[in-house]
Amino acid sequence: MNAIGIIATLRVQPGKEAEFEGVFAELAPAVRANEPGNSYYRLFKAEEAGVYKVLECYDDAAATEAHRASDHFRTLGAKLAPCLAAPPEIERLSAA
Amino acid sequence: MNAIGIIATLRVQPGKEAEFEGVFAELAPAVRANEPGNSYYRLFKAEEAGVYKVLECYDDAAATEAHRASDHFRTLGAKLAPCLAAPPEIERLSAA
Repeated sequence: MNAIGIIATLRVQPGKEAEFEGVFAELAPAVRANEPGNSYYRLFKAEEAGVYKVLECYDDAAATEAHRASDHFRTLGAKLAPCLAAPPEIERLSAA
Repeated sequence: MNAIGIIATLRVQPGKEAEFEGVFAELAPAVRANEPGNSYYRLFKAEEAGVYKVLECYDDAAATEAHRASDHFRTLGAKLAPCLAAPPEIERLSAA
């Protein structure tokens, strides 16, 4: 198994939480529906206000590339970016 | 949705990685098979040597309690503990 896990930490600007969550509510189902190499993609809130974490799992490195290159990620990612207070922090994990 | 996400960080003693992974290979399927309130439970390796992260999702707080109280978690957790170099760090996330 070459599965890849990702923990993406996203810091949202104060007051932009609802907009951010609204865009993500479109993005998450699009990922699950259109990316056969994705097996998990879910948004959570961290304890710190305005901080979100996306837990993700892909079958392999090619699937993570397909995610980033997808139309839905590019289109909806462009709508998420203006909500962020800082660049996303991406922690990459490997299958155990 | 009251779903709860968990990122559990586990530091394993040098040389105990194979033993740790072997116990986890029993634990993960037991969680998925026996806990209806668990929807995700997967072990990954972090970039730092000897550090593992478990990504977990439960339907609600009662399901996280059921996890900790389960026979499989108690029995196999007791086998994992001697492999660890430090107490587990548990980050709790809430549904977005």
